[in-house]
Amino acid sequence: MIQTISIIGGDLRIVKLIEMLSNDGYEIWTYALEKAENLDKLPNVHKCKTIEQVTEKSDIIIGSIPLSSNNTDVNTPFSDEKLTIEKLTMNIIGKTFIAGSIKQEFYKFLEGKKIKIIDLLNREELTVLNTISTAEGAIQIAMEETTRTIHDSNIMVMGYGRVGKILANMLKGIGANVYCEARKNVDLAWIKAYGYTPVHLNEIEKVLGKMDIIINTIPHVILDEQKLEKIDKDCLIIDLASNPGGVDRTVAKKHGLKTIWALSLPGKVAPLTSAEFIKDTIYNIFKEL
Amino acid sequence: MIQTISIIGGDLRIVKLIEMLSNDGYEIWTYALEKAENLDKLPNVHKCKTIEQVTEKSDIIIGSIPLSSNNTDVNTPFSDEKLTIEKLTMNIIGKTFIAGSIKQEFYKFLEGKKIKIIDLLNREELTVLNTISTAEGAIQIAMEETTRTIHDSNIMVMGYGRVGKILANMLKGIGANVYCEARKNVDLAWIKAYGYTPVHLNEIEKVLGKMDIIINTIPHVILDEQKLEKIDKDCLIIDLASNPGGVDRTVAKKHGLKTIWALSLPGKVAPLTSAEFIKDTIYNIFKEL
Amino acid sequence: MIQTISIIGGDLRIVKLIEMLSNDGYEIWTYALEKAENLDKLPNVHKCKTIEQVTEKSDIIIGSIPLSSNNTDVNTPFSDEKLTIEKLTMNIIGKTFIAGSIKQEFYKFLEGKKIKIIDLLNREELTVLNTISTAEGAIQIAMEETTRTIHDSNIMVMGYGRVGKILANMLKGIGANVYCEARKNVDLAWIKAYGYTPVHLNEIEKVLGKMDIIINTIPHVILDEQKLEKIDKDCLIIDLASNPGGVDRTVAKKHGLKTIWALSLPGKVAPLTSAEFIKDTIYNIFKEL
Amino acid sequence: MIQTISIIGGDLRIVKLIEMLSNDGYEIWTYALEKAENLDKLPNVHKCKTIEQVTEKSDIIIGSIPLSSNNTDVNTPFSDEKLTIEKLTMNIIGKTFIAGSIKQEFYKFLEGKKIKIIDLLNREELTVLNTISTAEGAIQIAMEETTRTIHDSNIMVMGYGRVGKILANMLKGIGANVYCEARKNVDLAWIKAYGYTPVHLNEIEKVLGKMDIIINTIPHVILDEQKLEKIDKDCLIIDLASNPGGVDRTVAKKHGLKTIWALSLPGKVAPLTSAEFIKDTIYNIFKEL
Repeated sequence: MIQTISIIGGDLRIVKLIEMLSNDGYEIWTYALEKAENLDKLPNVHKCKTIEQVTEKSDIIIGSIPLSSNNTDVNTPFSDEKLTIEKLTMNIIGKTFIAGSIKQEFYKFLEGKKIKIIDLLNREELTVLNTISTAEGAIQIAMEETTRTIHDSNIMVMGYGRVGKILANMLKGIGANVYCEARKNVDLAWIKAYGYTPVHLNEIEKVLGKMDIIINTIPHVILDEQKLEKIDKDCLIIDLASNPGGVDRTVAKKHGLKTIWALSLPGKVAPLTSAEFIKDTIYNIFKEL
Repeated sequence: MIQTISIIGGDLRIVKLIEMLSNDGYEIWTYALEKAENLDKLPNVHKCKTIEQVTEKSDIIIGSIPLSSNNTDVNTPFSDEKLTIEKLTMNIIGKTFIAGSIKQEFYKFLEGKKIKIIDLLNREELTVLNTISTAEGAIQIAMEETTRTIHDSNIMVMGYGRVGKILANMLKGIGANVYCEARKNVDLAWIKAYGYTPVHLNEIEKVLGKMDIIINTIPHVILDEQKLEKIDKDCLIIDLASNPGGVDRTVAKKHGLKTIWALSLPGKVAPLTSAEFIKDTIYNIFKEL
Repeated sequence: MIQTISIIGGDLRIVKLIEMLSNDGYEIWTYALEKAENLDKLPNVHKCKTIEQVTEKSDIIIGSIPLSSNNTDVNTPFSDEKLTIEKLTMNIIGKTFIAGSIKQEFYKFLEGKKIKIIDLLNREELTVLNTISTAEGAIQIAMEETTRTIHDSNIMVMGYGRVGKILANMLKGIGANVYCEARKNVDLAWIKAYGYTPVHLNEIEKVLGKMDIIINTIPHVILDEQKLEKIDKDCLIIDLASNPGGVDRTVAKKHGLKTIWALSLPGKVAPLTSAEFIKDTIYNIFKEL
Repeated sequence: MIQTISIIGGDLRIVKLIEMLSNDGYEIWTYALEKAENLDKLPNVHKCKTIEQVTEKSDIIIGSIPLSSNNTDVNTPFSDEKLTIEKLTMNIIGKTFIAGSIKQEFYKFLEGKKIKIIDLLNREELTVLNTISTAEGAIQIAMEETTRTIHDSNIMVMGYGRVGKILANMLKGIGANVYCEARKNVDLAWIKAYGYTPVHLNEIEKVLGKMDIIINTIPHVILDEQKLEKIDKDCLIIDLASNPGGVDRTVAKKHGLKTIWALSLPGKVAPLTSAEFIKDTIYNIFKEL
């Protein structure tokens, strides 16, 4: 039965997570979070002055999400402390370490050391839950960047993966005319079953011209010159796909198409909800330990 | 059969309206819109230099929405011309004049003159259509001003009139837990029938404490000190009600409650959609003339 | 504070109502319900042998819904007793009498007597709640009588009153392509706002031909020969309107159109839910006494 | 480019399929369908008298769904002809044969023969589309077999596979309070994202007691004695799972629980829609040939 947790670094989501864990009765030891206001006032939350001190308090160590932005130092936006990944690894031997987006650079320090590593962003349930925030973030952008209502707009969602599914569902819920692009017959069947208009990639050029908004979730360039020139000049393109994105940006610019590349929405648009999802996932992890 | 329309002043919605009317084949004469770009390029759209010139071209005159902001001059944001309401009235005798939010000050100039006046904002179908934009505007604010997703948030809609109905429907469509306040048993029955949680005003204090967002549509102070002190300090209050609004702002501030008073959303958040709704309404008016 | 209720006659809904009232702690005296099983086993429910006995127990008397089918006798399907309306009136002087569909024949016995009469079917909140059952009943018929799924069927709802509103909402919820007919611009605006396709009565003939199902709620003949001959021979017509209904049945038959006239659905398809709605309405009445 | 199709046997869905294929311009040759009315009147549809005749007309042969009910004879409900599977195979050498639920008994006749076999029920897109009909069939049963409305009923969907997903979506669309049972964290995350109440199998007993309807889609006994005794005696159980089903029927009976085992719903509740889905799938197959 886990009762004590050590937490090192992290952003607003981690701060909110600490509040919830404290509310649920856990004893929390923190390090590299000294500038996070209000933590002092929470019951059962204690501040540590050194990495050695915080890591010896519990066998469960939670780190930042993402763990590092430069592959060298742990992300500690609420602290003036500088903590290298290398130093961190030396202090968590024999422990369970939970963090997000743990890169290869971290694993190289672990060789031969007995550390149980869990990357939150590899947890499929968290990835699914985060699509809720991503979808809302995309809708917020669509609302802010257009002069039309979402209601009764023609909106194409490209790609029917996790984000595509939840985004289509919400857009329909506000009253949009939702078109979903996919390539596989089975995905097109699902799209029809959920009540959106299915569009096979091969036939997409027939309908692109009447779209008010196009939201891409496919992580390779799918909106190339041939497709972009079919799109109405007043259409907004929102690209949610990670690098290189799904839009040929140079061509889009040439055609005067407004394109917004929106990444990492969950932490930006709904840090509190993100913290709740992280908490749920950590509790699932606890059950499996 | 109306084929020619004269248009005087107006904001971006009127400019978009002219585009649509031009597309539909109407001959358009404009005045006090000389700074609106692109109008020159539209087929069948002509610029007039004087009020006399524009009004003699057609028996249908469309004015700005709202007609005036100071009760003296016509609103002409896309023009350097200054046109008094008085001068306007002298030039539209015998005509049909369509504009928005026409105040008493206008009608006093009309006495004895034969002018058919139609206030767009008295057209119930436009009021209903505008609730779509108002509801989306409120949702956009809710997304921007909170750190949570709308999805799975507890949201109270106060008042089950036009805006309340469409807002509740959209919020549910994104996945919120929607509570609707009303006083009449029949409204509470409708709320239940549409699948929201009905809350009688007399019982609202029992549930206010668990709300993440409260959106008021009732145009008199209903969230008074007694109710405000039941509300969680992290709850966002959005007040859509016209003056004096539904929130005791002094007390809300004292309690540290974040309150946003949002008025006239349709023109702000979705001018293009608003223009379409105005066009639909004008076409309905044409059928009735 | 009402604590004791007398109940006379009634069908399965009244029996279920007694169960709920008993659960809520009321003391119940019944008459002309002796064949309703299980009532004996309920706490606080007592059987009376005469109308005199049951009416003297409480100042609140609940009768059957509808009160009478022949304008002479009270409806008592769970009893061998025969009770005339006249005899009933003589025993409830000074009382509050609640029943359903109370006709003129009843009121004539009341002249000069001090009886407070409340007709449940005049309570607007109950009428609204009953639309839920009516809408589901219509959907059940549509499912049973067609060889297509509701999902992706073209369905026209004629009339946008109470039943039309809730029916359209549910049909959309299962995935139908919902068209709503109305005549008033403001109704057409609401239809658009809720995301259905609005069809003005004047333009209905353009789309009738592609309907798979037509559901009428308008209580006068609207589907006349001219309209019926536009309808596809495989289209199902469900008429929910009370006498004379909205379909020229003779012509429909001549054209080989399958027409189902479905009345009084709430009591038939969902007596238990109907009982709950009656209970809610009675509690509202109690608050107002 | 396929232009001619031979069709052998089949039920109402095949008859409807022939109508649609004829409408789309295909030349159709039929055998063992002589009692299907109206086929004669369709353009481009021709009757063959022998299996030899029909199979020589096209390289594409469509058989019945399921192909056989006794593993010996082809299903030919619209014919007096008796056609063994063995005889069929001898006449389709070198052809593409499309049918449904083709069993091992068929494949044994094929050894060494060059026949391209496509089992429609192995096509994932058809399986998904059929869930639409299955879900509606389940809802129809729920409406017919209960005295409550679906609206505001507590309904548990057990299993979040294909049928579970679409069923939950439709039930929510009519206004039910939808609970979905699953075991995997990722499925529970999806359930939450779509707005249903997630229930882990381990915690299901806490909520079973308040369910009005339970619909099982899991194909092994999951509602055992321990769970069944938690269920309210008025709760309806609908079992959509193939043999052995998900309910211990003996125990359910002992507890007086109304249980309905509903199989093969698509062909029963919506043969016309099923025919459309089959047509869509066949067209997908044509593109892949």
